[in-house]
Amino acid sequence: MSRYLVISADCHAGLPNADYRDWLEPAYRNAFDEYQTERIVLNEELRERGLRNEEFAEEWERENEEGLRGGWDAGRRDKELDADGVAGEVIFPDADAVTAGASAPFGAGLGASGEHDPELLMAGARAHNRWLAELCTDSPHRRAGVAIVPILHDVDAAVVEIKRAADSGLRGGILIPSMWQPYPPYHDARYDPVWATCQDLELAVHVHSGAADRAAYGEHVGIYVSEVRWWSTRPLWFLLWAGTFERFPRLHFVVTECGAFWAADLLWTSDIAYDREHAARKLGGQLSEHLTMRPSEYFDRNCFIGASNTRRRELARRYEIGIGNLMWGNDFPHPEGTWPHTKEWLRRAFWDLPGDETQTILGGAAAACYGFDVEALRPVAERIGPTTTELGQTGEGLEQWVNLRAAGRPWLTGIEAPAVPAGD
Amino acid sequence: MSRYLVISADCHAGLPNADYRDWLEPAYRNAFDEYQTERIVLNEELRERGLRNEEFAEEWERENEEGLRGGWDAGRRDKELDADGVAGEVIFPDADAVTAGASAPFGAGLGASGEHDPELLMAGARAHNRWLAELCTDSPHRRAGVAIVPILHDVDAAVVEIKRAADSGLRGGILIPSMWQPYPPYHDARYDPVWATCQDLELAVHVHSGAADRAAYGEHVGIYVSEVRWWSTRPLWFLLWAGTFERFPRLHFVVTECGAFWAADLLWTSDIAYDREHAARKLGGQLSEHLTMRPSEYFDRNCFIGASNTRRRELARRYEIGIGNLMWGNDFPHPEGTWPHTKEWLRRAFWDLPGDETQTILGGAAAACYGFDVEALRPVAERIGPTTTELGQTGEGLEQWVNLRAAGRPWLTGIEAPAVPAGD
Repeated sequence: MSRYLVISADCHAGLPNADYRDWLEPAYRNAFDEYQTERIVLNEELRERGLRNEEFAEEWERENEEGLRGGWDAGRRDKELDADGVAGEVIFPDADAVTAGASAPFGAGLGASGEHDPELLMAGARAHNRWLAELCTDSPHRRAGVAIVPILHDVDAAVVEIKRAADSGLRGGILIPSMWQPYPPYHDARYDPVWATCQDLELAVHVHSGAADRAAYGEHVGIYVSEVRWWSTRPLWFLLWAGTFERFPRLHFVVTECGAFWAADLLWTSDIAYDREHAARKLGGQLSEHLTMRPSEYFDRNCFIGASNTRRRELARRYEIGIGNLMWGNDFPHPEGTWPHTKEWLRRAFWDLPGDETQTILGGAAAACYGFDVEALRPVAERIGPTTTELGQTGEGLEQWVNLRAAGRPWLTGIEAPAVPAGD
Repeated sequence: MSRYLVISADCHAGLPNADYRDWLEPAYRNAFDEYQTERIVLNEELRERGLRNEEFAEEWERENEEGLRGGWDAGRRDKELDADGVAGEVIFPDADAVTAGASAPFGAGLGASGEHDPELLMAGARAHNRWLAELCTDSPHRRAGVAIVPILHDVDAAVVEIKRAADSGLRGGILIPSMWQPYPPYHDARYDPVWATCQDLELAVHVHSGAADRAAYGEHVGIYVSEVRWWSTRPLWFLLWAGTFERFPRLHFVVTECGAFWAADLLWTSDIAYDREHAARKLGGQLSEHLTMRPSEYFDRNCFIGASNTRRRELARRYEIGIGNLMWGNDFPHPEGTWPHTKEWLRRAFWDLPGDETQTILGGAAAACYGFDVEALRPVAERIGPTTTELGQTGEGLEQWVNLRAAGRPWLTGIEAPAVPAGD
């Protein structure tokens, strides 16, 4: 291959807030006007209390004014992705992570939870989903749009919206709230129609970081930083241990923008618990009765990590996590992502990785998860994708991975391998 | 040194349930009789529903009948510790992890939470603490007893009990509930009198695994397995980010029997968040305003991990976690621990580690955390402690750690070191 085919498994798109009004059903426009007014007051309060980083926001918006329009403008979007070397993308809501200026109506986007008004949440989701489908009609082979589907309150209505969204061309799957509270947890059979529909329609189910137990943190932002990823990874082991992937063997479940570092230890502790219990099943244990495979086997078959900006430290654990489970993403157009400097970031992270593994993490895993038409994307990649030279891949450093690759998951292979760059 | 001085930072002691009656204040004995009757009925129900692993319990108790009496019998206890090579110990409640037959009254032990009856909880705690102080008068240089102190409901009463317990000879510190719900989280200033008292009296504050969000799990034991450690590590970052270790710089906070693997990533993500914010503090960020040091610096000064049965995989991360923060334990007399086969376990885990690091993890860190009188313990260790030969430490394998030791915490040193046995 001359250039890598890069798919960003974590991008965002959203209209400037006020522009969503026309995409809402008319019955919800008065409520939207009130919602908008309340938001403006709230934002002003946050600013006055010093809880808004105004200086950073202004600088970010000034420096990237044109590029940020790619959050909703299809033509501009392709330009930005091209410059970043990204051929395909998976599109989540909420384009503006700095001042929340391009968020799905009524809080229906990344932070949706069981505490929102159910009817408004669904109305906001539908408005965003309709707009997103239109965005995706431009360069459709490059875009897998993810529909917002609040599944907590009314499972039947959620199934209706899933089918409607899929019909409208959103093939990236659905985004469900990370936190189910105060509704029943995701192991509950009430959600089975959602999993069944998504399996049938080949739609991946996503959680994305954002929600957390905020009421517990007081003013301490650091607590949020330390546990926000956990709250959005949690549904993974609820589904896994409840046997959801046993009952829906073709379901794809994706945890996005929560990092990937936690996955190795999760699989390690889960497999060990399973193997211990499985051996002793006749003694009455309850841990594995719904399961016929090890947790890591379900993970390999059913789960993907939208790992966004993969760190060296995480890539060093890729044989334990599973290379085919790892999907890189540039988080466009969020400032915590790698855009607009993706090629430099990729070089720092991937310079000594084998080419086949680089291709899988940068695009192959996402192509498999979302069913991208790789042949249709190939010409785009040939035009804009990063080369091995641009990633600094000269063959140097490859040998350090050999033992590690052989060891795979040491708790299963019994091989204790040295040579993991701990990294940063 | 000829033999290692081993201190187990995770041991348990408790009377057979019924024997606690005499240690309760008379006013609580009727309530205790009712509680005992309810427990027997409940246990019978669990047994009938197949939720008790009867076969395992019978085998464990048959094979270890004599040794298990060490859960409450001081003479037998010393015999078992001697045979395991353990000179000193830190003693938590609830000796019987199999059928809960030696648990502090009214649920005051490892599983105590904000949902228990506050008055009964404190009465049960006092009963256990009185008994434990007596157990510790036998071989006092070997035993650091940990007092149960339910601090959630009545902070003033908790402070009274802390002082009383310390006066009675319990020098291992206090055990607080891991989960504060439905009371305010541990960042709340209402708990400051507890931290102040423990700092003044040089008593370590502990959380110990056991409590979890059980109501959310339904019948799925695997979910509990995957997140139980998290619920008891959580108070660590609540205290840290709230500046508790800034305000109480000599406070020792210990997380026990939650493993150690999570600590490296916690420090990595926390330091990175702190450094990023600290540089931008003038821009109005709220993350680090209570802090004058990096999270890992507070961790090194104030925090310890009662890592119990340390795994190879965890020891491979010891330079990131901090060797002086890691305290091994045999979890006597629980079946998930290494007793009565500690020397074989130690050999598997420590065979290629440097001697100084082995000594720190097996005893040095605990001696520093709890103020054990090392000179008084030395003769015991000389009699029973494991030798380097018994641990298989021939010098082989040492060289693989050199680069890793130099790298330390790579996110701070900038050194990316290979050579971590991932292990099992």
